[in-house]
Amino acid sequence: MDDPQSTSSLRHAQTWVSREPLQLENGGHLPEISVCFETWGELNQERTNTILVCHALSGDSHVARHDESDDPGWWDILVGPGKPIDTSSYFVICSNVLGGCRGTTGPNFSDPNGDSPYGANFPVISVRDMVEVQKRLIDHLGIRQLLNVIGGSLGGSQAITWGIQHPASVQTCLVLAASARLSSQGIAFDVVGRNAIRHDPRFENGQYYDGPSPEAGLALARMLAHITYLSDESMRAKFDPTRLQPRSIETGFESVFSVGSYLAYQGDRFVERFDANSYITLSTAMDLFDLGEKDNTLQGALSPATCQWLFLSFTSDWLYPPSASRRLVDALVAQSKSVSYCEIESHAGHDSFLLEDNMQLGGQMIATFLANAGGENRTISIANEPRVDEPTSIFHTQRLDYDMILRLMPSRASVVDLGCGNGELLSILRERGHTPLLGIERDQAEVAKCVARGIEVLHADLNKGIAALPNQSFEIALLSQTLQSIVGVSDVLNEIVRIARLGIVSFPNFAHRPLREMFMKEGRLPKEEGLYAYDWHNTPNRRFPSILDFQELCKQRGIFIEQAIYVDSQTGTEITDNPNLNADIAVMALSR
Amino acid sequence: MDDPQSTSSLRHAQTWVSREPLQLENGGHLPEISVCFETWGELNQERTNTILVCHALSGDSHVARHDESDDPGWWDILVGPGKPIDTSSYFVICSNVLGGCRGTTGPNFSDPNGDSPYGANFPVISVRDMVEVQKRLIDHLGIRQLLNVIGGSLGGSQAITWGIQHPASVQTCLVLAASARLSSQGIAFDVVGRNAIRHDPRFENGQYYDGPSPEAGLALARMLAHITYLSDESMRAKFDPTRLQPRSIETGFESVFSVGSYLAYQGDRFVERFDANSYITLSTAMDLFDLGEKDNTLQGALSPATCQWLFLSFTSDWLYPPSASRRLVDALVAQSKSVSYCEIESHAGHDSFLLEDNMQLGGQMIATFLANAGGENRTISIANEPRVDEPTSIFHTQRLDYDMILRLMPSRASVVDLGCGNGELLSILRERGHTPLLGIERDQAEVAKCVARGIEVLHADLNKGIAALPNQSFEIALLSQTLQSIVGVSDVLNEIVRIARLGIVSFPNFAHRPLREMFMKEGRLPKEEGLYAYDWHNTPNRRFPSILDFQELCKQRGIFIEQAIYVDSQTGTEITDNPNLNADIAVMALSR
Repeated sequence: MDDPQSTSSLRHAQTWVSREPLQLENGGHLPEISVCFETWGELNQERTNTILVCHALSGDSHVARHDESDDPGWWDILVGPGKPIDTSSYFVICSNVLGGCRGTTGPNFSDPNGDSPYGANFPVISVRDMVEVQKRLIDHLGIRQLLNVIGGSLGGSQAITWGIQHPASVQTCLVLAASARLSSQGIAFDVVGRNAIRHDPRFENGQYYDGPSPEAGLALARMLAHITYLSDESMRAKFDPTRLQPRSIETGFESVFSVGSYLAYQGDRFVERFDANSYITLSTAMDLFDLGEKDNTLQGALSPATCQWLFLSFTSDWLYPPSASRRLVDALVAQSKSVSYCEIESHAGHDSFLLEDNMQLGGQMIATFLANAGGENRTISIANEPRVDEPTSIFHTQRLDYDMILRLMPSRASVVDLGCGNGELLSILRERGHTPLLGIERDQAEVAKCVARGIEVLHADLNKGIAALPNQSFEIALLSQTLQSIVGVSDVLNEIVRIARLGIVSFPNFAHRPLREMFMKEGRLPKEEGLYAYDWHNTPNRRFPSILDFQELCKQRGIFIEQAIYVDSQTGTEITDNPNLNADIAVMALSR
Repeated sequence: MDDPQSTSSLRHAQTWVSREPLQLENGGHLPEISVCFETWGELNQERTNTILVCHALSGDSHVARHDESDDPGWWDILVGPGKPIDTSSYFVICSNVLGGCRGTTGPNFSDPNGDSPYGANFPVISVRDMVEVQKRLIDHLGIRQLLNVIGGSLGGSQAITWGIQHPASVQTCLVLAASARLSSQGIAFDVVGRNAIRHDPRFENGQYYDGPSPEAGLALARMLAHITYLSDESMRAKFDPTRLQPRSIETGFESVFSVGSYLAYQGDRFVERFDANSYITLSTAMDLFDLGEKDNTLQGALSPATCQWLFLSFTSDWLYPPSASRRLVDALVAQSKSVSYCEIESHAGHDSFLLEDNMQLGGQMIATFLANAGGENRTISIANEPRVDEPTSIFHTQRLDYDMILRLMPSRASVVDLGCGNGELLSILRERGHTPLLGIERDQAEVAKCVARGIEVLHADLNKGIAALPNQSFEIALLSQTLQSIVGVSDVLNEIVRIARLGIVSFPNFAHRPLREMFMKEGRLPKEEGLYAYDWHNTPNRRFPSILDFQELCKQRGIFIEQAIYVDSQTGTEITDNPNLNADIAVMALSR
């Protein structure tokens, strides 16, 4: 009865049977569990190079080709020799999920105490139960700690659950396109899909294995779900130009519209490889996965985790949208756990994590994150970064402000860098023994560079708030040459002295003598080399702070300026006489 | 066979039979048509006060209660005595749509040449066919021109089609939550719904009228469609707090989750009042409605229209999103047709147009738009606007710049006002005989005020472009005291001289002597009364233009300054000597 409908062979798969009964989270038990799994690469002698891949709702153990002649895997873009999950370095495992229909115990298995398949009598299982089975397999293979657990969608839920349930067994965790709970909208789509299966007259209350299977219902469920895996944008691109030119296919479903024939094809193919009872079982587990509606419940659920996290979300994903991933990240941030996050620009919707052209940057981040997790044995190859020498830098051959910032910084203090760019300053601080370190950055390419450096980083816009960081969670909050580009200056300053004992802010002084004189004499928005080198109509600057203005704002907001350094960057000298006139750069240490 | 499943009585409905065969757009014909309709209010002697309401997919002729004892109507929030569509002033008509199941000819009618209902043999009909039937009814009632046609969703498609097909019969047209074509995503959901109906074994190829009807399939289609009528946000609010506490209902559908029991209830109720063949017929017509994928096709489709248009869209609507409505508006704008547009802040998704708390502003706009359409016989009651006296006004008792703008303006010239606010200046221009006039404004409340004044207005953000306006489509493009709040100054200036023969731009001069001196002396971002009265950290201004800076930008961009007036607003005198130093306000006439 195992996977009677398989289309791709699982000829590299192995099966292991756990004879110990499994108590299930929602009650009931399974007397024994068959686990179908595949592996790639070699386990190293220290047994420290294992990566567990968790598959999504309709996936299976066949993540990647084992050789040229093998069937394609569902994540060939990421897993293989020389790929981001490099099977020449790592030992990769993937098992078919509990409740699935591709070799692991599920509704299509016979109850060991009976003769017929479980069918609809298969118990309600949870993501935790799935993880429990994977844990048994890992134990059986003699692996005490996973270098990494990775998964997207339902696989992401499993990865999160690993981090929570087995903190000692997980060094790092990579979660793609996942959330703490599916949205009510997402559940609603699943409900309609399950109702379609159950109302197919062939469903026979789930005991259809001796007769025809409920193919129409399962195909309908798949068609509907498939829409939610795509995006409005990607469907527009794919189907709008040929709206009334359907593919010519043999199908019992409507194929008036091109999108209809596409869905019909997807539905028809799906029923060849998937079991309707498994679909109900797994989609119900997906809907029941719930780490809490409230933030404090969610934080409680995540509190046992000790691994390093990297979350990736995708802008066009509306089923597990970035805001949902961000909620998980915020709950970890609120507990000062080690977490990085990037929202990847994409067009393909929820499926983005499976598609090569949406996963270029994601693949890079996965590779470098894993390399850093592997420790000093691995060399991280990132592009050799020139020192910052862009229009946003006020210093053309060096970041003079770095030196001033370092002067104000207590040794080895923990630091959050707001607007951290590629993580250069944080790298310098790491070399000097500062820890922990965190960057906040709004540009995804810069975020990826931080990940490559092994710097923890959150992809976020300062203008939209950094509310997740707890009060006084860092000794230092840095805002280096970023103040002038922030609209909500006052809010950000308040946040700086809330999240850190000391804020260190550097900014270019708009009241510098040459600027004043130029304005007075020429009557035009003044310019000078550096951050004020722009024309009035195209400057990226949104605010024009002078030292005096900044001081007054701090006073108004009850923010105390503990120390200040003023410099003339042309001469490199420190200014003590009338800095608002004579200095072009200010660095201040702030506290509440 | 008429509507055997009706739940609300249609006791005020009348039926009229058109004996003339109807040739259908997609081929085939119907030998005669029964039309079920209702009316409210009285037709005036001149027969100029008729409003035709077009209903959406699952609606019927019962728009509103006829009296206290009557069943609720589906648009009671808008239609009735004293309501926005005031039945004490207007004669309101609504007929059940062709292909429907509530009294008008549809699949549940018997073919006059046969004995059995049409069923699935009912021909494929189009929105144009629906409108043709409505036109016959209007002719039958002796009405030559409709004051207004109004509809949302599929009703919006009908309203648009009225404007195109019968330009002489439509004075104004009000379109809510509609588009030129449904998205491929939207069609995909409909396809799954229709497949669910057709795969219900009771469907019997549509000939189910003698036996049980395909209730499960129809209910599934309804549940799915219902999700697309709500929003992620509204579902979150409604179902998240009680996720696993379903309503206790009798149903054959899954009710594990609260959202599931809600959908089950909606599905079960729907099959009591709706016919599955009608659902297929109408949703197919909805999917086939297509005014063109390309902008030029769409413009061609809309070109016959001569009515005044008002389009309303809703921010949370993802089935017929604002961008889709905006595409229609842009195609009308491109042809210099009379059109207004507002994107209404809402939370309830596509259903927003049916819900009181999402339709406050929409109701106001509908009322005032209709009142203005009625001409001088009606009085428009809008709140008495004080003259502008807000921080954004540089003049505290009068808009001095208006006088200067009027001096530069050729008499009776056509004008587009970019950032028109509540339409005050355009009203003044209208009194002076300028025509046509158009406002662009980004604040929805201000847009509503323009509509109330009878000023054509487009709800849009200048920063996001005004590309739809054709080259040289106005004599004058105005930008009054708005320049300093625009980020993309250069783009907007280019647009101004593209869309109009003459651009008139007024702005506050940042190089005014007191500002220069204050900056020189005090070393702080200078302030003065008016538009520069803000602090450095909270000013809404994004740009700080001086007269010289502005002149140079024009020169760089090949924009010619034809005339300029500079004023010292404190004294009200015109400045000719060194205006960049002595004037605080500049008004310039620009051309390419």
